[in-house]
Parts: sequence; structure tokens; C-alpha cells
Amino acid sequence: MKISRFFIPTLREVPGDAVIASHRLMFRAGMLRKLANGLFAYLPLGLRSFRKVEQIVREEMDAIGALEIKPTVVVPGEIWKESGRWESMGEGMLRVKNRLGNDFVVSPTAEEAFTSLMRDELSSYRQLPLSLYQINTKFRDEIRPRYGVMRGREFVMKDAYSFHTGDASLDETYEAMGRAYRRIFKRCGLTVIPVRADSGAMGGSGSEEFMVESVIGDNTLLLCKACDYAANVEKASCKRDYSAPASLEAVKAAAASLPALEKIDTPAVRTIEELCAFLKTGAKQFIKTLIYKAVNVELDLSSAPGCSKLERRRPAPDTPEVYPEAFFAVAIRGDLDVNEVKLAAALKAAEVCLAADADVVRLTGAPVGFAGPVGLTSLPLVADETVTALNDAAQGAVTGALEKDRHYRHVAYGRDFSPWLVTDVRTVVAGDFCPVCGGELYEKKGNELGHIFKLGYKYTKSMKVSYLDENGKSQIPTMGCYGIGIDRVLASVIEEHHDDNGIVWPMTAAPFQVIIVPIKYEGAVKAASDGLAADLEKRGVEVLLDDRNERPGVKFNDADLIGIPYRVVVGDKNLAGDSPKIELKYRRDKENRLVDPRRAAEELAALVFGEIEKLNN
Amino acid sequence: MKISRFFIPTLREVPGDAVIASHRLMFRAGMLRKLANGLFAYLPLGLRSFRKVEQIVREEMDAIGALEIKPTVVVPGEIWKESGRWESMGEGMLRVKNRLGNDFVVSPTAEEAFTSLMRDELSSYRQLPLSLYQINTKFRDEIRPRYGVMRGREFVMKDAYSFHTGDASLDETYEAMGRAYRRIFKRCGLTVIPVRADSGAMGGSGSEEFMVESVIGDNTLLLCKACDYAANVEKASCKRDYSAPASLEAVKAAAASLPALEKIDTPAVRTIEELCAFLKTGAKQFIKTLIYKAVNVELDLSSAPGCSKLERRRPAPDTPEVYPEAFFAVAIRGDLDVNEVKLAAALKAAEVCLAADADVVRLTGAPVGFAGPVGLTSLPLVADETVTALNDAAQGAVTGALEKDRHYRHVAYGRDFSPWLVTDVRTVVAGDFCPVCGGELYEKKGNELGHIFKLGYKYTKSMKVSYLDENGKSQIPTMGCYGIGIDRVLASVIEEHHDDNGIVWPMTAAPFQVIIVPIKYEGAVKAASDGLAADLEKRGVEVLLDDRNERPGVKFNDADLIGIPYRVVVGDKNLAGDSPKIELKYRRDKENRLVDPRRAAEELAALVFGEIEKLNN
Repeated sequence: MKISRFFIPTLREVPGDAVIASHRLMFRAGMLRKLANGLFAYLPLGLRSFRKVEQIVREEMDAIGALEIKPTVVVPGEIWKESGRWESMGEGMLRVKNRLGNDFVVSPTAEEAFTSLMRDELSSYRQLPLSLYQINTKFRDEIRPRYGVMRGREFVMKDAYSFHTGDASLDETYEAMGRAYRRIFKRCGLTVIPVRADSGAMGGSGSEEFMVESVIGDNTLLLCKACDYAANVEKASCKRDYSAPASLEAVKAAAASLPALEKIDTPAVRTIEELCAFLKTGAKQFIKTLIYKAVNVELDLSSAPGCSKLERRRPAPDTPEVYPEAFFAVAIRGDLDVNEVKLAAALKAAEVCLAADADVVRLTGAPVGFAGPVGLTSLPLVADETVTALNDAAQGAVTGALEKDRHYRHVAYGRDFSPWLVTDVRTVVAGDFCPVCGGELYEKKGNELGHIFKLGYKYTKSMKVSYLDENGKSQIPTMGCYGIGIDRVLASVIEEHHDDNGIVWPMTAAPFQVIIVPIKYEGAVKAASDGLAADLEKRGVEVLLDDRNERPGVKFNDADLIGIPYRVVVGDKNLAGDSPKIELKYRRDKENRLVDPRRAAEELAALVFGEIEKLNN
Repeated sequence: MKISRFFIPTLREVPGDAVIASHRLMFRAGMLRKLANGLFAYLPLGLRSFRKVEQIVREEMDAIGALEIKPTVVVPGEIWKESGRWESMGEGMLRVKNRLGNDFVVSPTAEEAFTSLMRDELSSYRQLPLSLYQINTKFRDEIRPRYGVMRGREFVMKDAYSFHTGDASLDETYEAMGRAYRRIFKRCGLTVIPVRADSGAMGGSGSEEFMVESVIGDNTLLLCKACDYAANVEKASCKRDYSAPASLEAVKAAAASLPALEKIDTPAVRTIEELCAFLKTGAKQFIKTLIYKAVNVELDLSSAPGCSKLERRRPAPDTPEVYPEAFFAVAIRGDLDVNEVKLAAALKAAEVCLAADADVVRLTGAPVGFAGPVGLTSLPLVADETVTALNDAAQGAVTGALEKDRHYRHVAYGRDFSPWLVTDVRTVVAGDFCPVCGGELYEKKGNELGHIFKLGYKYTKSMKVSYLDENGKSQIPTMGCYGIGIDRVLASVIEEHHDDNGIVWPMTAAPFQVIIVPIKYEGAVKAASDGLAADLEKRGVEVLLDDRNERPGVKFNDADLIGIPYRVVVGDKNLAGDSPKIELKYRRDKENRLVDPRRAAEELAALVFGEIEKLNN
């Protein structure tokens, strides 16, 4: 391809909002342009790399037997109402009414579409397992689209959905998808951090996120310095930095040796720090108690304190019954923070948030800041596991006393209060210890590129999918879903592979594999350049020929900027004489070397295909 | 690919609304399923053929130097407001407001998106000509989506847009596109009828539609029995079946020899037939006069009768000034019909329709049915060319007299009335004569698969695109646009290539090229089938292996239904003995023949690639 016949509008300046390398470089290299906030057009150069990533994903899906289909981008709102997500998806989902007043959705994801297709097609266990996927346009109405295609409104996602007769079959496909994802990222030259939700103490929830490190990442990851443990902070657990009580008897025995519960005046004390100073104790001896509001709680609260009057309802037909709203007290060791994602998971709630001050006052009977577990009967008490170990200290714990300017000390778990639920809701932080090996944890920011997830029966139940098993009995299939963002993968490749001069493409994602730069495109130089390009193309190498009438410096800068792996410079001087030479430079290297033009095509083809081979295997 | 690992849910029954072959067969063959009215999901088999058509289109676009890009499907409403089409596109365009209240459009076409991209990128004449295209999702909110993907709501279109410094360059690209379109259809095995708007007397408006004959076609075509003239009835012209007056002098001379104008009573005469009987004359001697309302008229009416008070406005900034509404009298020979598309084109109006009765009465001063050109001063008179020739008859013409139950006879053009505009607004019908060769015209119904069109400056002007020419002067580029519907092409391939048993794929669009049907997939038959499949795949042939445990009859029926070009049957009996055989059948033929399995792969590969070669060249 000659540059003069292509369209690569490179730029020196970039938009002011382009703060990350991939955003800047995709604009500068003429790969991408903005149509509107969060809406981008891939130009010819960008689309070539985009298609390569897409094709790698397609090949790896095909290789594990997933079958590509193409539903529509605009889908009927009806199926979202069936699944219950018409309500729960919120404003990020773009909803449209057509001229007849029917509801439609511009797909943000496609569980509903695939499940509805399978509902019509599935009849027998013999059709299972079945994995279907699409590589198609998605839309999410981000409030603040940023960072170019890394967080755009419209993007292309490969989303796969698998259907199974049972867990063993789902596990098998889930693991195959995990291996396929690892191959995809390797082939793209990406270093990913696979984050398994079930790698720690949380147990096997069956979900794995594939992250890349990024300063603008919207996920906080905790990684172990000693082993390969990696977790999203939303789900990370850590090794206990306390002795867990061996049994309830042990707890009570420890409680018996503590001084009696004592209510004390703590005037003008506002913060935990002030309280610690006042009582000459540490935050670790304090029980912090926070009041949370939870939405759509699936957990059974019928015997929970203060919940007897709560009523359940179904957000949509065939979805589980939930409590639309419920309040909880959450007790945790004073030096720690509550992780709201873990809390929501523990309560099986759609969402949790700190209760409004008015609700705190109403429920605790005290001003904000004096909640405590002792004598709290108006709502269920959820205790983080750390709270159960505070009896070990000689003085027991300190807590708010449900009265203004009053606290309890010598508080003993099991003697002075008994939680409704004990669980892990602690936010793990850098410096905590790895739940697997005990090594020190450190933090990274990460961007999610892909996610594999065992959905179970959520959609097949609510949307009423069934098949007949070997015995002719009707059964509901279980499901998995597996997503990967093509645009994000592409942008992440650039994030990982660039330098000050531009992109440094891995061979598998490069828009062209070789760029030929004639110093002046005429005479013998032109002939040699054209000949080499033709020879390379005959060998299946993708070649860009810079036939522009520009200074060599401009051409070299553009070649570096757009990041073509191999650059060949053809000049008069090197060509002249008995042993003609052309200059070969690998984009990653500083040095170039001279090669015989008669053997250059063969050598380059071997280099190109060798690098692809290395990445692909 | 083994069928057991693929997903081809063939059907015996089809939905009741599937009235055309492609709709029926795409469902029956397990290629397609319905998600909602007008929204379809391609299943794996259907998607394979879809991608082949898509790839043929892509290759032919690339071959003429068009460059593929990928804008978004959802685009800002803003650019549609700039072009003026936010108003003019009507309810078929799906409009969305996002959570911030911004307007968006789910693209029905992309002139605006491409023009807005070029506005930002174009600076110099050296960048032109440039042809860009996308193959991407489109949405049109059809009121009555029908016929499967032939008229769906969401579909995939290849749309290309070219930008030029002038007409010669536009012509060159336009012609190249026309040749590319012909190659695309040939490669897909389609017989298309290219319909050039400028092939007749209408002059070079620069548009060509590619039609396929179809009983459910939404276009009426007129074709010549003698030459290759083909036109959409909307634009068709025909050879005059009258002598055109040589000059105004000739007209006046003819008028002078006619009897004087005479007003006559025509009581209780309602129709042209009744009038002809009453006056003992023919409909060809009658001048029918119809009152039309035209919307957004661009033609200058400042000196037209009755139009002095009309005011112009701009529907959008930088669009031409138009008269929002204007009325016209249209006179045409009594045996002919007015073609409203031609009339709208002649008036440069967005739309025309017959005026309401009240408007007719108001404007003509007479009841409906008595309009005529004589003495009509309240509105501009548009005369079809046929009207100018009626002086030739000895008695002149008959017309309404603008009074109830009164007509004029001996009406002479140029003596008794003078039209404001004389043009061709006649609807051509079967039996009229070809404007090119004079042969007889006949009608066909057609479906449009593609359209190439010289847009000119419509979008570049309204959206303010400019570049600097060789002299550094700012210029506006001219544009062409070129669309082709991928889904429609695919469905049309099936319409043209099927029989009572199913689809009969042309090799280029076949989802697989060879199907191997083992009579019973076990033992030597299995080994031979697997071996042949592997050998064929090594040679690059796409093979489907029917490894199901079904009766041979079921497998044969399915093979015919899904239409794989070559079927190989492997059975015990034929394999046994010293000279083993397998059975080879071409889908189009009734007969099969026996071939040596050791040479089958080579022979089949040659047949497959030979057929592809034939279609592609």
C-alpha cells in the first residue's frame, strides 16, 4: 500500500483531553478521530489494527468450539423486562422508543438476546453444551466518557454465552475460556493480571477478570509480592492479622476474664483518633459501627432484628423476591474500612450505601458517631470477622454507647453483644498479608479487558429456558458469560507498547508489518522500493510504502509514530556500487543494519512470520 | 466442521409471515432467527454466508482504492441538524436522547458522519480524491418490516462516500464504483438490472440503481425488449408517441388553422370516458389538469403566476432557501398519468401530492373536475410535453373550463394558454416505447440492492467542508455516495438460487463448499469420511461433515436444504472391494457419480476453486 493512496492524517498536536498514551497516539498516528464525546471513528490505519485484534479473538473463540452468530445491536425492550434488568440496568443503558411506541435497547451487553434465542431453539440435552458468541457494537451511556476508546460510549465487544446441563460442563467451558483469554492476550503482546474472584478466602464464585495495569485504571488490585495472588479490592481478602477464636466457648471464656462492661463519658470527642487519645488506647481496640442502607436484599430477613415488618416483592416476574430497602449496622475493627462490594455480596443486595444521618439518628436513637453494637435491637448487626477477636485484649473493646458523648469500654463479643451475621467485609489494603501465602500485598490500578463469569441460572430461570434431559424430564440449563472489549484491548496494546516517538506495535497487531521509506521516490530508489514491496507482498507481508514527496526526517518520524515493526530505508548512496545495500531497522531497536536488497524480502518475511509465530504460540 | 459441533437447527415448518423463498429458506436452513419484528439474528450457518458476501464487497471496494473506516453506529443528532436532515428524514430515523438529554441517531445512513469527518481532516487538494467506506450496522424504523432480512429494521450496509475537487474526478470514481458493483453482483452469482437515471431523455443526473427482479419488489422497472434500457418508473422516459412541435412558430401556425376556442355545456359528465363519449373524441385529445401541492420547493417562483406573495425560508442553516408550500396546476394528455417523482424533480420540491378538494375549489374557482389551462392565472401551470403536440389534431384539445359542467373545445396551445413550465412528467407504462431504440417497454418488479449516486455539493455546502486548491484558494469538494445492502444481497442470492428442496448456493457465497455424508459414521466409513474431510481442509476447502446418528434420508434432505454445492456420500458398500468408490453429487444436478476416494479431494478442490474462479472473473 502506498501512503499516497492511503489516508494517515498524522498530527503533531493532540486534543487537550488526551491524557493517556493510547488516546494521544491513536490521534497523533491518524488511527482515530472523535465524532462526539465518547464516540470515535477508526480511520483506515486504526481499523487495520482493530481488525487484527478482533480476528485474534475470533480465532481463539473458534478454536475452543464457540460458534459466532450475529444478533442485532438494537434489541426489543421486552426481553430486558423479562430478565428484570429493564429496571436494574439504570441510566447507562440507552433506551429508545420507535415510531410505534415500542421500547428498544441499544445493547450494552447481550445476556437477554442470547438467552431468548436459546429459549426458542433449545429442546434436548443433546444440543448442550453450546457456546455462542458475537463480536458486535455495544453502547453504554457513560456519564464521563474519557481516555479515548478506553472508556468510550460505543465500543465493540466480543461477548460469548455458554449453556450447559450442569456444573461440570460449565466448569469445563469456563476453564477453556480462561485459557483462550490468556492466549488472546499473549498473542496481542499484552501482560495481563488475571484476577480470580475465588482465589482467596471468598470461595469459588466463578469469575475471573483480566486486568492490565494502568494509571487511569478504574479498578484497585491487590497483588502479592511473594506468590501470584491477585484480587480486585472489591473482593480481595487477606490473611488474618489476629487470632481467630477457636470456638464460641473460647470466645466466652475470653469474655469472662474481661472487666465488666462500663459506660463512660467522652465529652467533645469527635474522631476515633481523639477517642484513642482520650482513652489511651489504639484504633485496633475500637469497634467502629456504621449504619448502611441496602437495596433489593435477597437474603432472608424474616428473623433478623427490627425487620419483622419488612415486606418482599419481585422486581420482575420470575425473579427472586427481595426486600426493596433494609438497614443494617456494620461493626468492624476501628483501623479498618468496610468494603461495600463485599458487604452487598454478603447481604445479597443489589447495592449498599451509608445511611442518611436522619436514618442513623432514627435507628440508633443517638447522634451520628455514637453507634455501637451493645443494646442495638432496631436493626440487624453485621460484624466483620475482625470484631470477633477483640476479646483477646486485656481490656476488651471500645464502642459507641448509642448516646451522645458516651462510649462503652471492656466490651466483650459473645457477652455484651451477639451479631446477626459474622462475615468478611474488610477492605484489604497494601501492607495486608496475602491470604494464600502470607506475603505482603501491594496495590496497582488496573483496567478490565475481559471477564469470564459463571452466571448459573439467573437468566435461564427468569427467562424460562428449558430442555428435556435423558429421561425426558424438563430441566433448566446453567450459563456462563465471557466478555472482552476489542477497543480496550487495542488501546492497551498501545499503552504497553510505545516509546517517546510513538507506537511500537507487536507484530500481531501492527497495521502493516514493514514500512519502506525511499529517501527520494524516483529512479533506482523507486525501482528498488517498488520491487521490494512487491516481493514482500508476494510473500504475504503487509507493506506500507512511503512514496510521499517529503523530507526523510518527516518520513522517519511518521514511521516511528505509527509504529510499523520493520523500517527499510532505500537511498541512492547505499544502492550504488557493486554491493548495494538497504537499511533495515527494527522499531524496538536504536540501531539499524545494512542488508543486501536481493535477500531483504526473504529475511524480512522470516523475521515477520517468526515474530508472529512467537507471539501466537 | 462436524455438524454435531456446529449449530444448524433446521426446520420443517416456517413462520406464517415467511412468504418469499429467501425468508422461508433462511429460517428452514437454520441460518436465521427472529428476535422481534424486523430484527433478526444470524445463526452460525447464516453468518458464514453473510461474511462471504461482506468480504466480496470489501475486496471490490479495496480493489478500486476505497479505504475502510469504522465510525460509530450511534451518532450525534447535531450533525443531522447541520445537514438539515434532522427534519427531513422523518420518522423512519431512530432518534434517541441519552441521559444528559443530548440527541443521538441510530444511523440509517452516514453522509453526515463521513462529511463531518472530512470537514475536520481535509485541508489540501492533494488529499483528493478520497473514497472512504464502512460496512456497518444501520437502522431504519420501517413501519411494516417484512420478507425477513429483505426489509428488516436493522441491517448491514456497505456505504462509501467519495470526495473530489471537481466533476471529472467524481465521474471517474463513480464509474469505478459502477464497475465494482457489477463485479460484486457477478461474484455473488446475481443477475442484476442496472438502472441508470441518466440513460434516457432525463439527462445525466448521475445515479444508478442495481435491481434484482422480485415479485415483492418495491420498485417498478421499465425495460426495453430490444435494447438494454432499464429505468425505474419514477424516472423512466419514453419515445414520443406524437410529433413534437418544431418551434413556437410551428405551434402558432398550427393554432391559427384551428377553429376558435369554444365553451360548451357538458352537463352530468363526470369522467374522461363520459366526456369522450359525449364529445365523440378520444382521451388523447383531452388535456387533463390536476392541482398539486408541493412542499419545500427550491425552484425560483418569484415571477410565477399567483406566487408573488409566497415567502422563502431555510429549513436549516446553510441549506438552500425553499418555499415551504406552493400549488401548481399540471396539464397532461388525457390518456396519461402524472409521475409525482418526476414532477417533484422538475419543481425541485421535497415532495408533491394532489391538492385537497378545498384547495382545488379555492384555486380554480370551480368544482373538482373542471380545472383547465385556459384562463388559469391563480397558480403556475406546468405542462407535460405531450400537451404541446395537441394542436396537430384538426379540432385542437378539450379541457375543463374552470366552471361547473362546462368545457372548452378547440383549445390551442400557444394561442389559448401558455404554460409557465413545459417538461416531462409522464408516467411511462408497459407498451410505451424505449427512449433509446424505440423498442417496446415491459414492466418488472424489482428490489434495490445497491445505489450509486453523485451527491454533488449538498452535504459539503451545508456542512461547510472546504480545502485549499493549487492556488491556495478555498474550494468546496463535490461528493458521491455508494450503498449496498449486505443482508439484501444475501437474501437475493437465495431468491435466485434455490429449488423445491432448498438453497442451491453459488460457490462464492456457500457457507461450506462440500458436505460429507457418511451413511453410518463408524468403522471404515468414519475413517474414510474423516480422511477426506482432513484432506479437503488441508487444500483450503470448507467442509461440513454430517456425523449425526440420523437416517441417510434425513441427512440428504438437510444437505439439500442448506444447499452445500458438493455432496459426498460415503457408504460401506461402495467402499468395499478392490476399487472403492464414494458418491459425488453437485447440488444443481440430479445425477451423482462414483469417484475414487483416493482422488476425491484433489478433484473436489479443483471443482470448488474452479467454480469460484469462474464467478470471480
